[in-house]
Amino acid sequence: MKSIWVINGPNLNLLGIREPGIYGSLSLQSIEDHLRKVADNAGIDITFYQSNHEGAIIDRIHEAMGQADGILLNPGALTHYSYAVRDAISSVKVPTVEVHLSNIHARESFRHTSVIAPVCAGQISGFGATSYELGFHALLDVLERPNS
Amino acid sequence: MKSIWVINGPNLNLLGIREPGIYGSLSLQSIEDHLRKVADNAGIDITFYQSNHEGAIIDRIHEAMGQADGILLNPGALTHYSYAVRDAISSVKVPTVEVHLSNIHARESFRHTSVIAPVCAGQISGFGATSYELGFHALLDVLERPNS
Amino acid sequence: MKSIWVINGPNLNLLGIREPGIYGSLSLQSIEDHLRKVADNAGIDITFYQSNHEGAIIDRIHEAMGQADGILLNPGALTHYSYAVRDAISSVKVPTVEVHLSNIHARESFRHTSVIAPVCAGQISGFGATSYELGFHALLDVLERPNS
Amino acid sequence: MKSIWVINGPNLNLLGIREPGIYGSLSLQSIEDHLRKVADNAGIDITFYQSNHEGAIIDRIHEAMGQADGILLNPGALTHYSYAVRDAISSVKVPTVEVHLSNIHARESFRHTSVIAPVCAGQISGFGATSYELGFHALLDVLERPNS
Amino acid sequence: MKSIWVINGPNLNLLGIREPGIYGSLSLQSIEDHLRKVADNAGIDITFYQSNHEGAIIDRIHEAMGQADGILLNPGALTHYSYAVRDAISSVKVPTVEVHLSNIHARESFRHTSVIAPVCAGQISGFGATSYELGFHALLDVLERPNS
Amino acid sequence: MKSIWVINGPNLNLLGIREPGIYGSLSLQSIEDHLRKVADNAGIDITFYQSNHEGAIIDRIHEAMGQADGILLNPGALTHYSYAVRDAISSVKVPTVEVHLSNIHARESFRHTSVIAPVCAGQISGFGATSYELGFHALLDVLERPNS
Amino acid sequence: MKSIWVINGPNLNLLGIREPGIYGSLSLQSIEDHLRKVADNAGIDITFYQSNHEGAIIDRIHEAMGQADGILLNPGALTHYSYAVRDAISSVKVPTVEVHLSNIHARESFRHTSVIAPVCAGQISGFGATSYELGFHALLDVLERPNS
Amino acid sequence: MKSIWVINGPNLNLLGIREPGIYGSLSLQSIEDHLRKVADNAGIDITFYQSNHEGAIIDRIHEAMGQADGILLNPGALTHYSYAVRDAISSVKVPTVEVHLSNIHARESFRHTSVIAPVCAGQISGFGATSYELGFHALLDVLERPNS
Amino acid sequence: MKSIWVINGPNLNLLGIREPGIYGSLSLQSIEDHLRKVADNAGIDITFYQSNHEGAIIDRIHEAMGQADGILLNPGALTHYSYAVRDAISSVKVPTVEVHLSNIHARESFRHTSVIAPVCAGQISGFGATSYELGFHALLDVLERPNS
Amino acid sequence: MKSIWVINGPNLNLLGIREPGIYGSLSLQSIEDHLRKVADNAGIDITFYQSNHEGAIIDRIHEAMGQADGILLNPGALTHYSYAVRDAISSVKVPTVEVHLSNIHARESFRHTSVIAPVCAGQISGFGATSYELGFHALLDVLERPNS
Amino acid sequence: MKSIWVINGPNLNLLGIREPGIYGSLSLQSIEDHLRKVADNAGIDITFYQSNHEGAIIDRIHEAMGQADGILLNPGALTHYSYAVRDAISSVKVPTVEVHLSNIHARESFRHTSVIAPVCAGQISGFGATSYELGFHALLDVLERPNS
Amino acid sequence: MKSIWVINGPNLNLLGIREPGIYGSLSLQSIEDHLRKVADNAGIDITFYQSNHEGAIIDRIHEAMGQADGILLNPGALTHYSYAVRDAISSVKVPTVEVHLSNIHARESFRHTSVIAPVCAGQISGFGATSYELGFHALLDVLERPNS
Repeated sequence: MKSIWVINGPNLNLLGIREPGIYGSLSLQSIEDHLRKVADNAGIDITFYQSNHEGAIIDRIHEAMGQADGILLNPGALTHYSYAVRDAISSVKVPTVEVHLSNIHARESFRHTSVIAPVCAGQISGFGATSYELGFHALLDVLERPNS
Repeated sequence: MKSIWVINGPNLNLLGIREPGIYGSLSLQSIEDHLRKVADNAGIDITFYQSNHEGAIIDRIHEAMGQADGILLNPGALTHYSYAVRDAISSVKVPTVEVHLSNIHARESFRHTSVIAPVCAGQISGFGATSYELGFHALLDVLERPNS
Repeated sequence: MKSIWVINGPNLNLLGIREPGIYGSLSLQSIEDHLRKVADNAGIDITFYQSNHEGAIIDRIHEAMGQADGILLNPGALTHYSYAVRDAISSVKVPTVEVHLSNIHARESFRHTSVIAPVCAGQISGFGATSYELGFHALLDVLERPNS
Repeated sequence: MKSIWVINGPNLNLLGIREPGIYGSLSLQSIEDHLRKVADNAGIDITFYQSNHEGAIIDRIHEAMGQADGILLNPGALTHYSYAVRDAISSVKVPTVEVHLSNIHARESFRHTSVIAPVCAGQISGFGATSYELGFHALLDVLERPNS
Repeated sequence: MKSIWVINGPNLNLLGIREPGIYGSLSLQSIEDHLRKVADNAGIDITFYQSNHEGAIIDRIHEAMGQADGILLNPGALTHYSYAVRDAISSVKVPTVEVHLSNIHARESFRHTSVIAPVCAGQISGFGATSYELGFHALLDVLERPNS
Repeated sequence: MKSIWVINGPNLNLLGIREPGIYGSLSLQSIEDHLRKVADNAGIDITFYQSNHEGAIIDRIHEAMGQADGILLNPGALTHYSYAVRDAISSVKVPTVEVHLSNIHARESFRHTSVIAPVCAGQISGFGATSYELGFHALLDVLERPNS
Repeated sequence: MKSIWVINGPNLNLLGIREPGIYGSLSLQSIEDHLRKVADNAGIDITFYQSNHEGAIIDRIHEAMGQADGILLNPGALTHYSYAVRDAISSVKVPTVEVHLSNIHARESFRHTSVIAPVCAGQISGFGATSYELGFHALLDVLERPNS
Repeated sequence: MKSIWVINGPNLNLLGIREPGIYGSLSLQSIEDHLRKVADNAGIDITFYQSNHEGAIIDRIHEAMGQADGILLNPGALTHYSYAVRDAISSVKVPTVEVHLSNIHARESFRHTSVIAPVCAGQISGFGATSYELGFHALLDVLERPNS
Repeated sequence: MKSIWVINGPNLNLLGIREPGIYGSLSLQSIEDHLRKVADNAGIDITFYQSNHEGAIIDRIHEAMGQADGILLNPGALTHYSYAVRDAISSVKVPTVEVHLSNIHARESFRHTSVIAPVCAGQISGFGATSYELGFHALLDVLERPNS
Repeated sequence: MKSIWVINGPNLNLLGIREPGIYGSLSLQSIEDHLRKVADNAGIDITFYQSNHEGAIIDRIHEAMGQADGILLNPGALTHYSYAVRDAISSVKVPTVEVHLSNIHARESFRHTSVIAPVCAGQISGFGATSYELGFHALLDVLERPNS
Repeated sequence: MKSIWVINGPNLNLLGIREPGIYGSLSLQSIEDHLRKVADNAGIDITFYQSNHEGAIIDRIHEAMGQADGILLNPGALTHYSYAVRDAISSVKVPTVEVHLSNIHARESFRHTSVIAPVCAGQISGFGATSYELGFHALLDVLERPNS
Repeated sequence: MKSIWVINGPNLNLLGIREPGIYGSLSLQSIEDHLRKVADNAGIDITFYQSNHEGAIIDRIHEAMGQADGILLNPGALTHYSYAVRDAISSVKVPTVEVHLSNIHARESFRHTSVIAPVCAGQISGFGATSYELGFHALLDVLERPNS
């Protein structure tokens, strides 16, 4: 049974409360509840984690080595400057999909660039809570590729 | 019955032949065949179009007004400079999802920027033929939002 | 009797439909109808053309050689990247006036730069349909200069 | 009876003397004489002002509040750096059209950018003395818009 | 018998007419006539194509697959922005030599950069009609390399 | 009784010890002691927090929701790169004033830009320990505005 | 008895009239009236000056030498380009505090940089009319420092 | 008898007082006294002018037309942004030499660029009061050239 | 007996596992074991610390004040953006040497710049585990300088 | 009998030894031997020179005045920064063709720019040893132009 | 008796021959002859040197230590990139004046920046052969300053 | 017996004389004397070379092929622009370590970038004469790696 870790970065604990015009009105808990059902249907073990601490995100990614088959990562604002999270992903070599609730390419210019995406399998951005579900399926697909 | 138009830009007719290391070995026809099945299952009318001509892409986007409920767009290399395609999307106001086979954020720096994504609902990049399927589901989700 | 060709670039066929908050609510047809009257009064032969295809715009500019005395050009979004349209203008040496419906200097930063204006007689931007009428008069004035 | 103020910035008093190859051989006085006739025909009250002092230009723009219905502004070289003139325009909220004798988009690169145009209704550039006449008509058109 | 396709981009149909001070006074036809003689002497089948349409250039490059052994490409102004033509070249993997009539490195700064040259075998720039003849010989040389 | 939280970022615990030529010779404790007196006089409940951990700063800002009426924030060097702290501020929507001991606009160029100030009410920089007192009064003023 | 000069740059005479959404609805006169009361309470002689002329601002700063103990300066839009005002401040060596009504760090990017702040004691930005009162207290504090 | 006008920009009236470590301890008056002696010896009529007002500098440059044979200009900080002063110089076509007391190329980077020097005969920078004397001789030399 | 603290930033705990092609196959433990022997031979007390948390690195640097004579710092990816770590170093004024396993100047361009090196004694980069040993000797040398 | 000088810059003496994957496996001697035969056939006197010294390259270009009819120049890495070699070419006014073995437009970005090409007749890049032979023919063609 | 060394960089040996429109028609020898007379009159020992070799220029500057009281340096095109010449000047601490025949601030943009001027006493540019004579007098003036 | 060549670039012959505040007070000779002892102890043959000529540095690097096992290189100011020295290093493929006396990352911004370091094994910067000794040991370590 494959295992996927969903890791959320800074401020995502405020989902539903934080700027609903941009991020939607669902809480992180309700996204996780929905995603767990999707995972159960797909026969995938799923684990959730959120932290506002870059270091804790990195620790968690390290722990994924040998435990997780894939990572679904919403790095929050760390997306735009945390080369340390980038190095964590490329160090553990666990396939990772980057997801964003809002369309980062349509917001302030500093949000157009992800320093983490270049070491991920791909990026999904702009579909609210659905970005996670799409990312989950994308990750399953990546895991089924011969050389993953 | 909702209708979705899949529009592909320059060089995507060569899929499967063109740089398979980057773009995968599936032909555009086989992607379309698969996507048609997905659409049939979802009860969605789906139409495919590909052109190497920027002007023809724009004409096609215009025709979508009143005929298509949503557009799934892989602009190919036009992604990076065609402000005319961008304006076409924002003119017709048909909800659009931008998809890419390769992870454009992990390639040459000129490919990191999309001039079209800011007027799309979102962007999906890096999952090969699966990017289209994910984009299809993302688009359905966008169409179900109250204000779309 | 002098002849002026009015050439419109991508998406201008959607005028009146496309983002009326930015581009106004007049259709291209009604602008052309009005401009024809203005030309008739001035004793000028006037011809209209619109295409979403950069190549067709260039072909049309080439045909102007020997047939048109002046060109009124709204290049649409090609304004910002089509060095090929620029070269077409400088190749045929038919006096050209660049017009824009919206004030391009007040919109997104990529719209502040015209790669075509440096080879035109001048640029008029921001007056909606009136930009065309002003451009028509500007062009007549340019044609009356001794060295044009 | 509507009133339009024509305000000219630094060095425009030298018109006709200054670099006629670029700016034409008409003096500012003869441009004003011609424009007064145009305004008389249109039943518009017109007033002229020129100063080489940025502060005097700003003072004059302030005085326009309540006295002028529109401003025709040739900011001269202040176009490219005077954020103070820009703020004056946006403060008084009198509709303003920016005009230039030469095609500023075809000259040194520092002249391609106007810091003032973003708060004007539009910009006309490149038609010599005719730029003023076109700007006058453009301004009348702006004043006739419902929300001006 | 080897086959070489000569593909010319926008505005090159105007050769001899367009800015002879920059591009020389030979027409495209006379360049082709001369090049055909050179090809006949070398026992090479040669075909000519010109279009002002980026899409048609791309279509033509695609057709070269399996039909042409090499491409001699003068992309005209597309040189400086058409990532779509670039991708067409790298997709078909037919060896290509980029040629320019004028010395693009000695003109406006936007002409110093070719977005297409990085996927060509090499670039020849500045020798007028002779650039084509040199490019022809360069291409033959490339085709004789073991791994071409 | 209103409550204000004073949050200090990395290295501010070393105040008085750290580069006194730049930051002054008062310790953070003595600044807090003084500020508490000011708050007592103003009938404001005041709480102090300092951490060298970006994540802890974010956690603390989140906790302010519903508990604090306003935040006085000295983000230390996080000012210049922590988009995550910026997002925390804009998420909790608690009015925030950014303060700096030194005049950041007069130091190394990387210190001239604050990525956090755009989501604060304002910024005070350069008055040593007094910056905090001024910031306290500024915050009270912000809290008294009708729409805060 | 110490003397403080309050110097206001271009367009600040329009306060209350000019864009109240950004600058507030108080007039400059009412700000000065309030500030005079504050100064009276503090036993400080206070003088007000406003000009739309950069040169007059500079003249006034020069006059401050020997007459004023400190300057409270709102340079208006001169903030962003007047190196001449900057040099005036650094020439007279009268301690100066820069104040802004709006939060300049949250507006157009050209407003994020002050060319004057590097030679001031500090900068206060974003608190409307209160910015002046805070700046007044900041300046008093600066004047009490041993080496001022 | 030839006439030379010495025009000094903002803050130069403070010479000797203003930052003597950078600008030297001579007053502007003593520089002028010395320069007058030099001019008398050379049989040249010399006139001095200083203003902190950009507009007054421009007015004065305009007056030089027909009255002065050459201008010795120290634009002060206007050197770095006053395109209006630049245009004044190029408008009147009176040969001009730009002088600076300090070595502007060795100070803050914004001082390395002169927007005025491109329309002057040359620039002398770094020799304190002697820069004026050298500039005077340079200007005489320029005036003796056949085509000046 | 002198004391040296070796502080390692994010992802260095994965040494030997993480991208051995770039970082070598030695674990952090084996590097520390070797370095301890080198320190013992030199009669130096040595202490090791690693964290993925920027804040913990800063805390540790603060603790070095009064306890450590020098710091050997490998900031990992924090090298490229952590101005907070930079400020920690410059705050505690404990001599610090920056070391890197890989040659950061030969990798992605974002790795060419260290925001921390300007406040260190020097930087050693590219020698794998040996970088630490060289850094240790460099630090001893720095500590023996008269003014350290 | 015409004379052509072939001048090679730094590191070209190592040809065949140096990075054969990039520069090919022919030595400079064998290229020269082949080129001499080509020149003999064309009835052209040919001379070869190589130096690793920028100054010696410049001396040699100076000597070409009056002795050589044309120069075939491979500046090696000096291509990218030697404005002194550029000035040498433009000083002697001997027609020059710039050649490169590798396709400099397809390598590191610093190699995409030639500071020398703007003063050459043209540039040939990417055809290995054949670049020299093509350059030789290009130069002959340039020399036959009427105004060379 | 004081000694001044005049050092000329690349291509200045071609003076009078090289682009006389830019550099004038005097040879370097005639400039030196004139300068020697000026020096004799001033009782100064003067020595001339020219080389096209950056290394020889540096060697010569080193030799100036202890032998020359001042250096008059025209670095030619080395002005714009030779940090090695810059370091030579700052190493020997012999007062140096940089001179240029043409007005480098009015030519190509790469010539606007001198990497050497920041370590010279000053710069004189634009007065042809007279630049040297002015530079000679400037240098004498520098040598007479108390701290030179 | 292994052989190491120590190559020093421009101005390093002035060591001890040149700016001792930055570079230390040891002469190059004394550094070499010390380094020779270190080499003797390690049983390594060591040779020293210094030149102010870029070309001579390149010649020397070429001679290293087949004679030296490794190079210790202090390129002086050539570090920042000599792509020719960079190419020399990558051509001869002799392992090279770049050393600097001063911490180049803490000085003027142009010194932060080395165009040579990307083709070296590593870089050591900031430890005065000790940088050479550390570089010597680093180089020995590089030579002992299996694939060197």
